[in-house]
Amino acid sequence: MPSDITIHEYKHMKFDKAMVIVGFPSIGLVSSIAANFIVRTLKLEKIATILSDDFPPYSLVHEGEVSPPVRIHAGNRMCDEKGEKCDQLIVITSEFMPAPNLLRPLTAVILDWCRHNDVNTIMALEGMNAGDNPEQREVLAVATGDKCKKMLANYSIKELREGMVSGLSGVLLYEAERTGMDAICLLGPGRADYPDARGAARLMEVVAKMLPEIKLDPDPLFKEAEQIEKDMKAAFQAIKGPGKRQDESVLYG
Amino acid sequence: MPSDITIHEYKHMKFDKAMVIVGFPSIGLVSSIAANFIVRTLKLEKIATILSDDFPPYSLVHEGEVSPPVRIHAGNRMCDEKGEKCDQLIVITSEFMPAPNLLRPLTAVILDWCRHNDVNTIMALEGMNAGDNPEQREVLAVATGDKCKKMLANYSIKELREGMVSGLSGVLLYEAERTGMDAICLLGPGRADYPDARGAARLMEVVAKMLPEIKLDPDPLFKEAEQIEKDMKAAFQAIKGPGKRQDESVLYG
Amino acid sequence: MPSDITIHEYKHMKFDKAMVIVGFPSIGLVSSIAANFIVRTLKLEKIATILSDDFPPYSLVHEGEVSPPVRIHAGNRMCDEKGEKCDQLIVITSEFMPAPNLLRPLTAVILDWCRHNDVNTIMALEGMNAGDNPEQREVLAVATGDKCKKMLANYSIKELREGMVSGLSGVLLYEAERTGMDAICLLGPGRADYPDARGAARLMEVVAKMLPEIKLDPDPLFKEAEQIEKDMKAAFQAIKGPGKRQDESVLYG
Amino acid sequence: MPSDITIHEYKHMKFDKAMVIVGFPSIGLVSSIAANFIVRTLKLEKIATILSDDFPPYSLVHEGEVSPPVRIHAGNRMCDEKGEKCDQLIVITSEFMPAPNLLRPLTAVILDWCRHNDVNTIMALEGMNAGDNPEQREVLAVATGDKCKKMLANYSIKELREGMVSGLSGVLLYEAERTGMDAICLLGPGRADYPDARGAARLMEVVAKMLPEIKLDPDPLFKEAEQIEKDMKAAFQAIKGPGKRQDESVLYG
Amino acid sequence: MPSDITIHEYKHMKFDKAMVIVGFPSIGLVSSIAANFIVRTLKLEKIATILSDDFPPYSLVHEGEVSPPVRIHAGNRMCDEKGEKCDQLIVITSEFMPAPNLLRPLTAVILDWCRHNDVNTIMALEGMNAGDNPEQREVLAVATGDKCKKMLANYSIKELREGMVSGLSGVLLYEAERTGMDAICLLGPGRADYPDARGAARLMEVVAKMLPEIKLDPDPLFKEAEQIEKDMKAAFQAIKGPGKRQDESVLYG
Repeated sequence: MPSDITIHEYKHMKFDKAMVIVGFPSIGLVSSIAANFIVRTLKLEKIATILSDDFPPYSLVHEGEVSPPVRIHAGNRMCDEKGEKCDQLIVITSEFMPAPNLLRPLTAVILDWCRHNDVNTIMALEGMNAGDNPEQREVLAVATGDKCKKMLANYSIKELREGMVSGLSGVLLYEAERTGMDAICLLGPGRADYPDARGAARLMEVVAKMLPEIKLDPDPLFKEAEQIEKDMKAAFQAIKGPGKRQDESVLYG
Repeated sequence: MPSDITIHEYKHMKFDKAMVIVGFPSIGLVSSIAANFIVRTLKLEKIATILSDDFPPYSLVHEGEVSPPVRIHAGNRMCDEKGEKCDQLIVITSEFMPAPNLLRPLTAVILDWCRHNDVNTIMALEGMNAGDNPEQREVLAVATGDKCKKMLANYSIKELREGMVSGLSGVLLYEAERTGMDAICLLGPGRADYPDARGAARLMEVVAKMLPEIKLDPDPLFKEAEQIEKDMKAAFQAIKGPGKRQDESVLYG
Repeated sequence: MPSDITIHEYKHMKFDKAMVIVGFPSIGLVSSIAANFIVRTLKLEKIATILSDDFPPYSLVHEGEVSPPVRIHAGNRMCDEKGEKCDQLIVITSEFMPAPNLLRPLTAVILDWCRHNDVNTIMALEGMNAGDNPEQREVLAVATGDKCKKMLANYSIKELREGMVSGLSGVLLYEAERTGMDAICLLGPGRADYPDARGAARLMEVVAKMLPEIKLDPDPLFKEAEQIEKDMKAAFQAIKGPGKRQDESVLYG
Repeated sequence: MPSDITIHEYKHMKFDKAMVIVGFPSIGLVSSIAANFIVRTLKLEKIATILSDDFPPYSLVHEGEVSPPVRIHAGNRMCDEKGEKCDQLIVITSEFMPAPNLLRPLTAVILDWCRHNDVNTIMALEGMNAGDNPEQREVLAVATGDKCKKMLANYSIKELREGMVSGLSGVLLYEAERTGMDAICLLGPGRADYPDARGAARLMEVVAKMLPEIKLDPDPLFKEAEQIEKDMKAAFQAIKGPGKRQDESVLYG
Repeated sequence: MPSDITIHEYKHMKFDKAMVIVGFPSIGLVSSIAANFIVRTLKLEKIATILSDDFPPYSLVHEGEVSPPVRIHAGNRMCDEKGEKCDQLIVITSEFMPAPNLLRPLTAVILDWCRHNDVNTIMALEGMNAGDNPEQREVLAVATGDKCKKMLANYSIKELREGMVSGLSGVLLYEAERTGMDAICLLGPGRADYPDARGAARLMEVVAKMLPEIKLDPDPLFKEAEQIEKDMKAAFQAIKGPGKRQDESVLYG
């Protein structure tokens, strides 16, 4: 079945060697919490959305404004001597994990858009199951392409040498490698059972080295992360009806 | 899979800056009860239907007349000084919640038809889970576009600032926003376990401010709402056969 | 998915203002029992079949002759002063309820064929859940079009004023109404748990007023109805193998 | 979904008024055991296969040679005064029951091939649930077309007068009848819970009247039948892995 | 549904009468362990991948490099007097079993590629359920084509005379036979419940006779096999999130 996934741009922005951060939800929601934190802290602007009949049917409401389930936010940066040299930052966020057979078509749409917009680096945020052991709560990374391989050393990030990366990040990695794009995946430790603000904070510590304009005082970060976590949970509880996620049309009575 | 959703008009009516109210069922049936109440109270005329092989197979029988599962009723209005200035009212009603992957194609068909018929404002009625706490039983709203944003202030409706709107209303909101149409979604409090006439009455109080020709004596409204609730429930109980909603062809014997 | 439903005619018969009776199974099998009773009593001839890959795979064997799962029988009538004025009778019978998403394509095929064959009236037989209460065991009807509305009065059939008609009869009704054909649906009382010869007899009492050539002595009718019921049940028990109705290819071993 | 079912011929053989025996598995495996017995006893040659992506994925290994899941074997006959007059015998065998929606496309492919190869008679072998009652363990038959109707009398086979034939045999019967081909279905008694060599032997007694070159000493037949039964069961047990019949791709780990 | 399976070559290599080893997972993982052992021991180079939207979404990470779920490795050989005479070796590996309806399209893609690359022999590695009985822990083989039939004798491999080969190996065998390619399937004994390094070692003993450049000291092999087993298991445990293998898009909250 050919996919109907498309990108709709609310406004066209010119990019030049931008970095794209992809934050679909993963274990403990660490990737979503981190990606939302970046969007809010840097006050990025919503510039586009990715649409499909196969995405879940909902509007996200933030500060009274509605958005589709996948948003693309972007903004200009002031590059420091430290951190990554890129003039713009683009962040793709969502609250749902697409069905497995949508991930390659979605990846193709994202990578095509990146190529047309002169994107330099793709950074996928992902969670990994680290259990409760605090020693294991370290951020790992997988990189493809020379530039991203160097980032591992530049920021002293431990490399995942053997293993697997599943979900959208997994497909993004091998498709980036296959088509010659530079990509890095940061794997933040997460606990499976509930949104994990501490794991997201670990992930943000690494991201903040690359994007030093994100001021990272531990306290506000944790508070913010906990707030985002609470918001996301409350949003679903408050307004969902019975049977809303059924696959079939449902008759009332 | 391309959708087969189409609109069939029983009679063609000319519209000029009409308001469309969309009332598919949601939690506690508050949206359906309210939309049916408007159709019956204002004696709107059935002018069209929306058809699809994927909608449930049934005829609705009302006063001995048969209708398909989705009906579009319409009528002319006498605008008051109070309330919304629109010359016609169009109400879309149904008893079923379409499967999630039908919601974007259905939304596209509805919004196209609205555009071709010079519709001014789209108002989606929706339920939200408010529990038993009477304090929480307040109507919230989400609006997109300047005109609808102003309605929130005009009628003193509390805005949902953070959260989610799921189902057809959720898709209608983000697609209206994306394509530049004015839309508002009223979220009425509903209890999940049974049709909730009181929640529907709360929703009607807000609608009646916008459409003051709906005479809203509390007592008749509650009685009517309870009657509609009873009718809808009885209708399904009385005539449904065993296995009628199976997905597969069923062999008897 | 476009439907593959087609009508195959074993022999072409000329019709002139015929009546079509549709008897797919419903609650308590009352519609199937009644439709088969008409075919057998009036000795109608098999003239056509409706075919689809999505219908269940079986041959019906009757008096040693094989037939597909959906049969169309027909015959000429001698109109009485009493009863319906129509020169031919056509009866569509089956033992299975098609999957919900087949019902609109099937209805379209049936109504197209009716239009091409100058059919006057469509009468859908249907069951309704009437419980054990004998007082409730009354036949109701829903009609669309002036001619069929009059039939309600002519034969003193009580009208269903509020409610729902589901299944093939429900779709036939709203599609007949929508496309301007005369249709009536007779709802016979049926008990959900087993084939209900008494309910079918109730339904036949009404049909026999319209088609007085059906001699309706209560005793033979009940016996015949019970026999049909027994035949249909036995047929399935006798020859079905294990797993025969699986959706997947099944490997033996 | 259009079917991808095709026939591949390993070698092209000229046929002249041949008989085709179809032996897909049915209750108690009686049809498969009987069809395999014919292939092995008459040393028929593998001449073709029927292929589809929707058939189960396996190779059958017999005497060290691999075959696809559906095989067509054929050979020349020496017609006796007794039995059927046909110069060749063609047998279609398999170990799986195709999914219901494949049966009409598969039937169409088989009947087309029969028509192009001047096939005279189609004989479908089928099981029927006869319970443990030895009195009921009689072979019944359903025939369509004059020639096959006469076979019932010629060989004193009891006719199934009322009932149903399900599965591939059911569809073959009504499609043969509908398109004017001669077909007969032999229904052998089988027990549902396990492969039933005695039921297959009953079926073979009738087949052997038609094909008297099959020497039918009871003892070797029962032994052979029991051996075939054991082989088929062992084949699946020996080599199947965990999850091999899943519908989804399965990830190991 | 037409398949979207394609081969992507990272680099184009010229082959001349190469042998292809296919090692998708089977019972006890014996085929995967053996195929990975060959790739690692002979230091084969990754030259291509097979891609499909229907394959599971993950990247395999090995020595810090990412790969898609199906890899094709290849390298030149120094043919000994002993063993198979082929100048190159190509190994196809994966960690997942494709869904049954993907196996014929996948086989078609593999066999086409083999034909275009002048492949001489296809060797499918497969597991078979041998229980705990050490006597039964013998490698069996099925071969098609004269050359591969001779390999059975050359290397004293016991032939599977009667039975079944399921999964990708089963389809590869009958499609190779049907289209005139030489193929052999080695069936290694495996225990169903866990990765079985000893079974894989048994399989490798046979492979090492054909490819004597694989130095097969029992101790390192078992250690290596156990390590591969541990790696594959750990990889999945470490990074998988909740719900990651769901068929549906999953909403977090």
